[in-house]
Amino acid sequence: MRAFASDNYAGAHPEVLAAIAEANADHAVSYGADPWTAKATELIRARFGADASPWLVFNGTAANVLSLGALTRSWECVVTPDTSHLHVDEAAAPERMAGVKLLTLKTDDGRLSPAQIEPLLARQGDEHSPQVRVVSIANSTELGTVYSVDELKAIANVAHANGLLLHIDGSRLANAAAALGTSLGDITTAIGADAISLGLTKAGALGVEVVVFPNEPPAGFAWLRKQHAQLASKMRFLSAQVVAMLEDDLYLRAATHSNAMASLLATSVTAIPGITITRPVQANAVFASLPPALADAVRPDFPFYTWDESTSEVRWMCSWDTTEADITAFTTALQSAAAAV
Amino acid sequence: MRAFASDNYAGAHPEVLAAIAEANADHAVSYGADPWTAKATELIRARFGADASPWLVFNGTAANVLSLGALTRSWECVVTPDTSHLHVDEAAAPERMAGVKLLTLKTDDGRLSPAQIEPLLARQGDEHSPQVRVVSIANSTELGTVYSVDELKAIANVAHANGLLLHIDGSRLANAAAALGTSLGDITTAIGADAISLGLTKAGALGVEVVVFPNEPPAGFAWLRKQHAQLASKMRFLSAQVVAMLEDDLYLRAATHSNAMASLLATSVTAIPGITITRPVQANAVFASLPPALADAVRPDFPFYTWDESTSEVRWMCSWDTTEADITAFTTALQSAAAAV
Amino acid sequence: MRAFASDNYAGAHPEVLAAIAEANADHAVSYGADPWTAKATELIRARFGADASPWLVFNGTAANVLSLGALTRSWECVVTPDTSHLHVDEAAAPERMAGVKLLTLKTDDGRLSPAQIEPLLARQGDEHSPQVRVVSIANSTELGTVYSVDELKAIANVAHANGLLLHIDGSRLANAAAALGTSLGDITTAIGADAISLGLTKAGALGVEVVVFPNEPPAGFAWLRKQHAQLASKMRFLSAQVVAMLEDDLYLRAATHSNAMASLLATSVTAIPGITITRPVQANAVFASLPPALADAVRPDFPFYTWDESTSEVRWMCSWDTTEADITAFTTALQSAAAAV
Amino acid sequence: MRAFASDNYAGAHPEVLAAIAEANADHAVSYGADPWTAKATELIRARFGADASPWLVFNGTAANVLSLGALTRSWECVVTPDTSHLHVDEAAAPERMAGVKLLTLKTDDGRLSPAQIEPLLARQGDEHSPQVRVVSIANSTELGTVYSVDELKAIANVAHANGLLLHIDGSRLANAAAALGTSLGDITTAIGADAISLGLTKAGALGVEVVVFPNEPPAGFAWLRKQHAQLASKMRFLSAQVVAMLEDDLYLRAATHSNAMASLLATSVTAIPGITITRPVQANAVFASLPPALADAVRPDFPFYTWDESTSEVRWMCSWDTTEADITAFTTALQSAAAAV
Repeated sequence: MRAFASDNYAGAHPEVLAAIAEANADHAVSYGADPWTAKATELIRARFGADASPWLVFNGTAANVLSLGALTRSWECVVTPDTSHLHVDEAAAPERMAGVKLLTLKTDDGRLSPAQIEPLLARQGDEHSPQVRVVSIANSTELGTVYSVDELKAIANVAHANGLLLHIDGSRLANAAAALGTSLGDITTAIGADAISLGLTKAGALGVEVVVFPNEPPAGFAWLRKQHAQLASKMRFLSAQVVAMLEDDLYLRAATHSNAMASLLATSVTAIPGITITRPVQANAVFASLPPALADAVRPDFPFYTWDESTSEVRWMCSWDTTEADITAFTTALQSAAAAV
Repeated sequence: MRAFASDNYAGAHPEVLAAIAEANADHAVSYGADPWTAKATELIRARFGADASPWLVFNGTAANVLSLGALTRSWECVVTPDTSHLHVDEAAAPERMAGVKLLTLKTDDGRLSPAQIEPLLARQGDEHSPQVRVVSIANSTELGTVYSVDELKAIANVAHANGLLLHIDGSRLANAAAALGTSLGDITTAIGADAISLGLTKAGALGVEVVVFPNEPPAGFAWLRKQHAQLASKMRFLSAQVVAMLEDDLYLRAATHSNAMASLLATSVTAIPGITITRPVQANAVFASLPPALADAVRPDFPFYTWDESTSEVRWMCSWDTTEADITAFTTALQSAAAAV
Repeated sequence: MRAFASDNYAGAHPEVLAAIAEANADHAVSYGADPWTAKATELIRARFGADASPWLVFNGTAANVLSLGALTRSWECVVTPDTSHLHVDEAAAPERMAGVKLLTLKTDDGRLSPAQIEPLLARQGDEHSPQVRVVSIANSTELGTVYSVDELKAIANVAHANGLLLHIDGSRLANAAAALGTSLGDITTAIGADAISLGLTKAGALGVEVVVFPNEPPAGFAWLRKQHAQLASKMRFLSAQVVAMLEDDLYLRAATHSNAMASLLATSVTAIPGITITRPVQANAVFASLPPALADAVRPDFPFYTWDESTSEVRWMCSWDTTEADITAFTTALQSAAAAV
Repeated sequence: MRAFASDNYAGAHPEVLAAIAEANADHAVSYGADPWTAKATELIRARFGADASPWLVFNGTAANVLSLGALTRSWECVVTPDTSHLHVDEAAAPERMAGVKLLTLKTDDGRLSPAQIEPLLARQGDEHSPQVRVVSIANSTELGTVYSVDELKAIANVAHANGLLLHIDGSRLANAAAALGTSLGDITTAIGADAISLGLTKAGALGVEVVVFPNEPPAGFAWLRKQHAQLASKMRFLSAQVVAMLEDDLYLRAATHSNAMASLLATSVTAIPGITITRPVQANAVFASLPPALADAVRPDFPFYTWDESTSEVRWMCSWDTTEADITAFTTALQSAAAAV
């Protein structure tokens, strides 16, 4: 199967599997006191700062929800776009796991504007009102857009000026860095993020994400991770993946590639009658509207999701393993189907 | 390093890694709608019954806590030995993740007796009293003992006669089955267990456990798994491990081996002055008391944990990859040290 | 002090205090097995149906959150207007106490429209999406508006047709009934509500609210109330209040009066320059815009809250004990101040 | 009815009702910014120290669970006797409301010994182990015993020396103070308690309890109270009760009386054949064993609870309103029945 449904339809990068196999020798201390975890920590610190504290977890839900749970008390809440994965795609995990309330904001393109934050703060200090504590944004966003370094700084500044913290859902942080031509640190630590969920699975890992606190982690985070079933016993196999992804910047090569494929796809389909690109293509997602009959005609061979039934908008995701041949085959299929329908 | 500290110091069985590598081809639907998950389901059903519903999760904490959370409402509680992993080694995950209260019972050897259950039920129906709902036992237990089929039946019968459910923490279920010479089903589905945490990681997987409900799963379990961050995106890599472990009964071969190594170790050390085996060796754990100086002398080369400082009792775990040579080397080291101290 | 700040600035109706004093004789079984609770149950059933199950609790937060907690599982969520008390004034109690996620909808006047519900249901059944389970509306609303019987029926019908439940926050249910000229049952049980929070404190009680389930209560609700610290030991004193409020329809007399006072206030201020009534006056709330200087001039003598700083909108609440003299005094003060500013 | 079932079978002291009636005049700011709450605060501070922070709540479950919730994070747990109300009579409220794990200890007479604490601390700092944070004891205890000032100091000292906090469940604190001839402060603030649940309902209030933090309250406690539905809107009526109970030490007079009645009862029954006092009578509870037939004979006229079916032990509670005539009548009935059976 060759799909454009999600970047998690792709498998693991061969270098990741090789690293796992290489880690699979002899006995190693469980739960993280092993050489691979030490190496992963070193590589994270090289990117996020010498004081950064990395916490490996199993998936993105965990990375986001544990981050937010650690930054908030039960009466504190999190501001996030109403399109955010946190709000629409986590089956109420923030409310259940972390007990945290979300305050959602409408956005044009998935990106929060700094000006939207302060109006929410009118009742800070009021015993009856949920207290805003964290702003959580994703980069790149659910809509495939990318916050620039300046935009990130502006949000961080408003947050900090108001006593709030900034969390970055970096499920596709590599794609944002690749799009902007920056390092991971440039768009997180350097702009003042207080917690980062570094996503590696979609970028090419088998299954690992990292919660990164640029400075001292919140008190008791080790127990929070443990009690939410996110402490791996054979940790070396998670750490080996992190090492493979960061060493020699495999994550960046992979993301640069998937971004390029999305760009190629967007360019390739523009000439096809009935297809309109609906959103800026800044990372590895392409949003397009096309006649449902056309979508249905090619979907069996190239699975993808409808994003919005009401507007016939679909989402095409490119992955680290999407090839130019995949794009050509898909585009050709679309062209043929467009001609037929 | 060659250690007797824990069966999770061992790596993954080569057949497991091979299965992962084989699954790493092309695109696959994420979150479980893939051929490897279908195959894993089939293999689970062959062992736990045609109606069994298997739910893959990342680790044992999750398998146990999600099982219990699904079987209880917030006012219902779980009876378990006071030595259970749930109570002492999960950083209060049952209370935090599932909000479930534990009622703990003292046992002689880690095994609950059916007679201990009914005295706890005097206040069922009383609005002020936590209501007992589930009995949770581990097989093999934290103390390396194994419940027989008849003992399991007796507990299940008392539970069911009183409207309770039985959960089996099968973190080392393979070792119990190997010790008893039974199938996995014989000691779970067949004796009436209502939920089972099937542990595969300690048995040789890289990292996967399975919650098995013999019949209809509790309503909404799919969401419960998702919202507790236990739904893997690249599920095929978890499923491939399950397939590798169950197909051709690798789990059973592995557990039979680790049990045999424990037995060999227990036999080998009995002649060493100062060492006393303190508990029945029925699975892959050996508990022994020995002079602290002797323990300290060999620990650097063969790491293991002290179980009870006050009685100089230690725990030695054998793994799927423990070799006779490991036993010989360790025993020899103990003998030399015993002679020296 | 005579205030228009909130209907909870008023004290308890003398008949309520008399009933408490009368109940204060001799010993009585605690936790509800007393004659006053039996009488309260009888009076509730006379209004909400013979199968109604009433549960007395201490305050409105408890009544609403326990209702919603009982109707939902952790992955299920509640649709409510974004102006609802639940969302903006409960310090995240729904998320904390019940672990329930709220999905909020914009409304014109605090009233949800039936047409807003179905668009939220596109992802029912999807493992990644929070599942909508309850629609929660307040009658009268936070904005002083009242749903008609037909509007309530329409919402209940859409909810039930889609497998959802309807909760009515009746913090000011008496005011709605008084406004509509109906009984409490007409606007709850009769239109198909599945759970009702019957508010009596604002209507004149000292402090008691009732969760009413028209039929069988959700399983375990007795424990849910107990474990959320809402089971009164000296229950007779809560029950005596309920009896006083319901017997001879004191609640209705009180609400009819407070509604009339709001109507009088609205009429009385319309001629004052600079004051505009901003919302329909249907219950006991009057919303008005007026120059901040004017508001500030009278506020010290007649406390009230600013509702929306940005539009100079204020809220004036009338209570069971607001008198015509209060209205006259307040209006006169406004007139004088308006002339002066 | 005249009962010995519980001190919450008694009504409210007339002075309490009078205070409520007196507070029921005019409008008052809701939620605590009223003169009665200011007066209650002053009276609490006079007893618990000038920095004490009092938080009125509706019942004892709330006072205990909110205290513990405020002192712990989710991975921290509470040590308490296995007979404690918290553990056996709160329907798992600590686990549900506060998400807090209890570690229970066996005691001879309901009183924890300081020596029992340190053995629980072997795994402080271990990521897998729940972390002990609070010691929670009741004074007087569930078994009617009273900790002396020296015993309290010893427990506080062990707790503090190990970085733990001390919570005192003062559901019957007045009875302890009366028994010891001390002030409330002597047995709480002065011995170093970090949080106190001051029970006033059983002592004669209609329904109010106070969480007292001797120093700065834990961050965000106002929101914690609010979001657990424990913030009264018409707060003045709770505060008026506190004022009535504390002013002129009504609580102490009431508790001195109920203690004396218990003592009289214990003395009066000792001569009756078949009745044995089973525990020290130090506060307002009398525990006795007697033939079930004898118990059943008098129970209809003088309701009381069986404490332990297996040992025919019953509990007789005396209240602020128990009279010498009640004791005489009850004793006479026991004597007659003892002669008859």
